Amino acid sequence: MTCHPYSERVARCAGLMKAAGLDVLLLAKPANMAYLTGDGRLCAYAMTTNEGKVALGVPSTDVEDVKRLACFDRLDGFEDEAHDFKHFEIQEGSVGLEYTFLTHSMMGMLTHPHGKPEKVVAKDCTPILSALRIAKEDGEIERIRAAAGVAVTGMVAAVKALKPGLTESQVAAEAEYAMRQTGADEFWRTYVCSGPRTNIAHGLPTQRRVQKGDLVMIDLHPIVNGYSADICRTVCIGKPTAEQQAAYDLYLKAQQRTIAGVKTGVGMVELDEILHGIIRDGGHGDHLFGPTMHGVGIEFEEAPLPPGHAFFHGEKAPPPLATNVVIAVGNCGLYTGPWGVRVEDTVVVKPDGPQILTDFVRQLEF
Amino acid sequence: MTCHPYSERVARCAGLMKAAGLDVLLLAKPANMAYLTGDGRLCAYAMTTNEGKVALGVPSTDVEDVKRLACFDRLDGFEDEAHDFKHFEIQEGSVGLEYTFLTHSMMGMLTHPHGKPEKVVAKDCTPILSALRIAKEDGEIERIRAAAGVAVTGMVAAVKALKPGLTESQVAAEAEYAMRQTGADEFWRTYVCSGPRTNIAHGLPTQRRVQKGDLVMIDLHPIVNGYSADICRTVCIGKPTAEQQAAYDLYLKAQQRTIAGVKTGVGMVELDEILHGIIRDGGHGDHLFGPTMHGVGIEFEEAPLPPGHAFFHGEKAPPPLATNVVIAVGNCGLYTGPWGVRVEDTVVVKPDGPQILTDFVRQLEF
Repeated sequence: MTCHPYSERVARCAGLMKAAGLDVLLLAKPANMAYLTGDGRLCAYAMTTNEGKVALGVPSTDVEDVKRLACFDRLDGFEDEAHDFKHFEIQEGSVGLEYTFLTHSMMGMLTHPHGKPEKVVAKDCTPILSALRIAKEDGEIERIRAAAGVAVTGMVAAVKALKPGLTESQVAAEAEYAMRQTGADEFWRTYVCSGPRTNIAHGLPTQRRVQKGDLVMIDLHPIVNGYSADICRTVCIGKPTAEQQAAYDLYLKAQQRTIAGVKTGVGMVELDEILHGIIRDGGHGDHLFGPTMHGVGIEFEEAPLPPGHAFFHGEKAPPPLATNVVIAVGNCGLYTGPWGVRVEDTVVVKPDGPQILTDFVRQLEF
Repeated sequence: MTCHPYSERVARCAGLMKAAGLDVLLLAKPANMAYLTGDGRLCAYAMTTNEGKVALGVPSTDVEDVKRLACFDRLDGFEDEAHDFKHFEIQEGSVGLEYTFLTHSMMGMLTHPHGKPEKVVAKDCTPILSALRIAKEDGEIERIRAAAGVAVTGMVAAVKALKPGLTESQVAAEAEYAMRQTGADEFWRTYVCSGPRTNIAHGLPTQRRVQKGDLVMIDLHPIVNGYSADICRTVCIGKPTAEQQAAYDLYLKAQQRTIAGVKTGVGMVELDEILHGIIRDGGHGDHLFGPTMHGVGIEFEEAPLPPGHAFFHGEKAPPPLATNVVIAVGNCGLYTGPWGVRVEDTVVVKPDGPQILTDFVRQLEF
């Protein structure tokens, strides 16, 4: 297999490691492994040096599969899942670990004195991986575009199927089925909520049956060829009230103006302020909840994250948006109490403005 | 709403906390919150004292929804996701945190000197929650039974739909669609792999098209009314080779004899040995990979975990199986190199033997 673009990514990674004083990265997060080697899977690890060498460890069962999919200098199959630094043959130096991915107990296992030589110092490598992955290559944008197309197919199917009596879960079923027919390998959790449940921050599907007059919020994130997209639409089953229509129109205006403000060099706080300002001016300032936006790539929610959200995830506040960063705008909802509305699209940052990838009509009434 | 069985669970929890010298638990894992309060959701927390008081914190948008679903003494809505001990009004004492759930960076945030009073000491509360949840109440077993029924419906749909040309993801689509029609709110990741991919340890679905003569491995884990089940079947599209049939027969015999050995008081290592022994005697001793079994409940993979697996998850080795523990038997696969086979069922531990919940025929050829 060709090692483009992985060898270039590993070289960039080595440069960032040297600048940060790291000798080795020890990665266990599938998304990070996939970015650097072409394959990311559960219960595996990738070790990369600041000279650009990559060693992979995978279950012994998976060796042939990984040979076919990944770029590496060394590949080991292992029989059990318990590792420590002795296993990795690291005797000393500064080792980057994924503090935002490893659980505290996994971290404890890796850095326990029984397993970690005294001269090994662990550091968080999250900022390096975020910096590496934040601006997308053209090939990555094409994959995100493909995922966005699949997400739209899912949204079309869900909206078309919507009728009173379906459970929220059955609405999710229509979207997911359509996405699997058109190229999704998997999805991040599908959100479908309806009626009063549109007011909650993370509306995962339940057995609630949608009713005439309900708002229904549908949020989809397929994984296609290793990349994700993020789309949310709110629709009404039947005719919305004037208040619902006004809130929706306000949110959509705020979201679209925020997207219009997306271009190279703009800061996320600045974009936040566009959205928040319009919602405030519309009298719903107290009704927003959640970060306005987040990055999209291998993960549907990744760097850049807005400052508050970044902090929660243990990351630093992001720099101004660079060209080819991909973000989802409209992650926060407008929650009035009895119901909420939200519209979210996946957008590429370009020097002269935004490129919207999730092309599905934005309207409450169908 | 009625607080049965949550108040009883909180009382049991308080007893275990006193025995372990813990004053307060601060929980963020949805499964643990759901067990103790009736509601577990993302970006929320539950604080319980060793006097049996429960305080919940949820996004401000979710307060009414949580009032309807959870049992608690105090409920706070919050506007952002960043917390520390000052926010929790804990000044001193021994505080239990979920070391097997919190990332190292979240842990660092919670226990940073800026946020944690000097007199607060953090300890891992994973063993307490595992001990609480390990043996199921009758009501929980009924929910797992319902989830098992939904899992079987998914398996029926997937096996029925199987034909050459479908992608692995399309096979998963059939199972998931059927499960959402019959009561699943969500699923843990669906595994479908085929042909040479049946030899890998975690066969998530891809765009590979199944072919005549392929083995196909289907592993399903629906969530129904808050509880999970776990079923895996391997089937052949067309006629298996004699070698495949023999390996399947051997694995099935080993899995079924292991299930037959399940009863109150038996140890997991003992059960492991039944399965491993039969596979060894059949000449495939080097072809097993993965833990033989694991617990099933709110999560599809929870305590009890076999010793090696438990260590990896930061848990202690489990005690002998108690009555009403629910386990999935057949989690390890028999991997020959070119292909693998696996059969997994969800089983309740009873004094006089096993009660199998996932009732779907075990055969390679359909």
